[in-house]
Amino acid sequence: MKNKVVVIGAGPGGYVAALRASAMGGEVTVIEKENPGGTCLNWGCIPSKIMKTSADTYLRLLEAESFGIEIKDQSGGRGGVVFSPDINAIMARKEKILETQRKGILSLLQNGKISYEKGRAYIKKEGIVTIDTDGNEKDIAFDSLIIATGTEPLDIPAFSFDGDAILSSNNLLSLKKLPESIVIVGGGVIGCEFACILSAMGVKVTVVEAMSRLLPLPSVDESCSRVLQREMKKRKIKFITDQVVKSAEKKDGTLLITLEVSPFVEPGKASKIKPQVLESEKMAVCIGRSPNTSGLGLENIGLATDERGWIPVNERMETSVNGVYAIGDILGPKRIMLAHVASHEGMVAASNAMGVSEKMDYSAVPGAIFTMPEIGNVGLTEAEAVEKNIDVTCTTVNFRTLGKAQAMGEIAGEAKIVAENKTGKVLGVHITGPHATDLIAEGTLAVKAGLTVSDLAHTIHAHPTLAEIMSEAALKGAGMAIHG
Amino acid sequence: MKNKVVVIGAGPGGYVAALRASAMGGEVTVIEKENPGGTCLNWGCIPSKIMKTSADTYLRLLEAESFGIEIKDQSGGRGGVVFSPDINAIMARKEKILETQRKGILSLLQNGKISYEKGRAYIKKEGIVTIDTDGNEKDIAFDSLIIATGTEPLDIPAFSFDGDAILSSNNLLSLKKLPESIVIVGGGVIGCEFACILSAMGVKVTVVEAMSRLLPLPSVDESCSRVLQREMKKRKIKFITDQVVKSAEKKDGTLLITLEVSPFVEPGKASKIKPQVLESEKMAVCIGRSPNTSGLGLENIGLATDERGWIPVNERMETSVNGVYAIGDILGPKRIMLAHVASHEGMVAASNAMGVSEKMDYSAVPGAIFTMPEIGNVGLTEAEAVEKNIDVTCTTVNFRTLGKAQAMGEIAGEAKIVAENKTGKVLGVHITGPHATDLIAEGTLAVKAGLTVSDLAHTIHAHPTLAEIMSEAALKGAGMAIHG
Repeated sequence: MKNKVVVIGAGPGGYVAALRASAMGGEVTVIEKENPGGTCLNWGCIPSKIMKTSADTYLRLLEAESFGIEIKDQSGGRGGVVFSPDINAIMARKEKILETQRKGILSLLQNGKISYEKGRAYIKKEGIVTIDTDGNEKDIAFDSLIIATGTEPLDIPAFSFDGDAILSSNNLLSLKKLPESIVIVGGGVIGCEFACILSAMGVKVTVVEAMSRLLPLPSVDESCSRVLQREMKKRKIKFITDQVVKSAEKKDGTLLITLEVSPFVEPGKASKIKPQVLESEKMAVCIGRSPNTSGLGLENIGLATDERGWIPVNERMETSVNGVYAIGDILGPKRIMLAHVASHEGMVAASNAMGVSEKMDYSAVPGAIFTMPEIGNVGLTEAEAVEKNIDVTCTTVNFRTLGKAQAMGEIAGEAKIVAENKTGKVLGVHITGPHATDLIAEGTLAVKAGLTVSDLAHTIHAHPTLAEIMSEAALKGAGMAIHG
Repeated sequence: MKNKVVVIGAGPGGYVAALRASAMGGEVTVIEKENPGGTCLNWGCIPSKIMKTSADTYLRLLEAESFGIEIKDQSGGRGGVVFSPDINAIMARKEKILETQRKGILSLLQNGKISYEKGRAYIKKEGIVTIDTDGNEKDIAFDSLIIATGTEPLDIPAFSFDGDAILSSNNLLSLKKLPESIVIVGGGVIGCEFACILSAMGVKVTVVEAMSRLLPLPSVDESCSRVLQREMKKRKIKFITDQVVKSAEKKDGTLLITLEVSPFVEPGKASKIKPQVLESEKMAVCIGRSPNTSGLGLENIGLATDERGWIPVNERMETSVNGVYAIGDILGPKRIMLAHVASHEGMVAASNAMGVSEKMDYSAVPGAIFTMPEIGNVGLTEAEAVEKNIDVTCTTVNFRTLGKAQAMGEIAGEAKIVAENKTGKVLGVHITGPHATDLIAEGTLAVKAGLTVSDLAHTIHAHPTLAEIMSEAALKGAGMAIHG
């Protein structure tokens, strides 16, 4: 029986694949050179959400009096009380939670009877992986190999990370001091999340984005970018679109950052843009990720990457090499680089490795963006539907129409349902607003199960909850609007 | 054409019915003797959630330092800083939001070309309602009448509301001063919500409940009561089950509240219970609601209520009198007294009044309970499934297994899925934990659409979100557990 499975990388894709393969009877080894949990746990989703929780808490403190909470010092007055985010305390809390989660993963693996090896993995030849643990090498045989090595922040030679003035997202997640000002290069998910977190903590933030809107991802509806940009403006977060960083120069303890017109701008529009020179204490570069394939020995089994270094796979997560699978961020942006996609890919790869054929379904992949307000999305955007020539109706409802949003004091945002006119089917849901990242679960189920706006409209939503936004949008879409 | 519709009561059932009837071509009048919005907006869901937002904010302040926020006074130390809930400021915020929402309803009605009459409605005879506005009477003819007059807090003669020491939930929503201590009689939804809110604000709270658990509603799974009771204990909220209040006596500015064994306790167990005498500044009685039918003139059209005063209707929301419908809380507890049920009943009644036959579907009614932590539930409990002899598997996952719950610092709680073994169908979902009232929307859609645990397990849930609790529970239910 072909049951020896080796997984390289213990991120959310890797450890889920290992657990599944083991549960299906595999003899599984996971090899990880750093801490278990991958980018998600150590350098991504989780630590950034821990920072966001502190940022949210700090903002709540600043506005506590508007919720009827009295704040006084010894003198009985308010004047002397000062709140401030203590970045070292925040990082200490982060480390504690991460350590708990890492232990959790190790104990899941242990309970699943999975061997865990700390070290660098190197594919020696067909069927053999070498583990290098601090110079000690050990060979392990495999019938199936699952590559889940992930990515690291993309370093741009023109303004390379120095960990001091020019920072990666990893550096942002281990700050020792909050800067006074920061320029964030790249208005994608990572850039916008950090812009909101750091700005909330009192840092002067400027985001520079090469495209014409923030979050210029195909999966993000333009309405979400519009609402986010409006709310970021209210929070005094500056953003500059259609421009890129040409160079960054250190001068007297500050950075002079020279912008130029983005290569993505049409020539006609380009002449109207006057690139600026920004002055900032720090600059964070959040414009992409690069694949962790170097030193993996892919060449030893004849596994070729694409021109950008990503590993191509089919829908069974198989690479071009028999018995070798790849999952997660290492597949590159075409396959959606998200932890929850990686873990589903991990389940699919493990099933196939264990001889049970399974295909990955990318038809209803939700996105969760932890900006302020949050964004949750799934399925087609309005623009994508138009591009595909699908006849759709888009219905939008504002959060301010909901009693619960009013009660919480979080009224910014809206939800949009994209529904096919012919069938009534919900093809996409795009929510910007409080709890959007949780609310998208209902939309995802609707898209995945092929439900219609009428199905949603006839489903009772509890009052007073934020989930009523789906109800209101669906009622409106079904021609039965109440509050929207 | 029979298109004259009169709606008595502008609560969530009444105003939605009016909007629907008008949209369907009806000539609609709404009569309301108090503010628009009914119990929900004025004395229930919304004001209590406004108080809860302040309570949550206050709690966040108290624990802000554990999230890395530094608090200092002029001296540079922490010692002198005091936070306190200012009940008058909280009530002022409440009034402001309520006023906005009331105006919102009036403007919806106005946009819907609906006549709004402020006054007492009195059914004069078949086809005629009299409106008494401060003594000026006016008759209005109707083809269809929709009664949506709701309820008020049930007054118990043995310890009648005095608005001073013995309070109704209405009184709690217009407190002028926080008491030092309060005994809340009734551990149902209203009692438990207020227990959490008031305790968070620093009030010493004791809940007295006649049944053997808090939230002893058939729709609330015992697991939810268990988790809530555990968390309430941690918050130092005292609760006494199996006992009822016999009498309450004022003495030297305090209340002496004498308990006795609940009539619901089996005789065998009763002897083991030693009823206490509680001392408390205030007592709030939250043990039921009574129907607002007095003075309505139901007898003039021969419309009989049941022995408890509730109005019986069929599934088209029709009463025993032709052309007369009733919706909302006035139908009594058998029909589920919730705002979102009322508004759906309102849509059904309006459709039928306008000649389009529609039936009310109570099969997937979610519940949202704003305790700390929140509870969201839908469909069958485990006990109900057993009672109905349905072969089910119940799967439970703890929130502490989710990275997002850890990041937020809100790890208490669990989610349970009740699924039928024969079909895999999700029959019930019971969530106690952060955002449970929003998360239940996905469960409701699953129950309503007849989806299976496997459908849920194969639906990708965004990471890191609280919605992953559904994913984990479903994966576990489908034999594919990861973190649970």
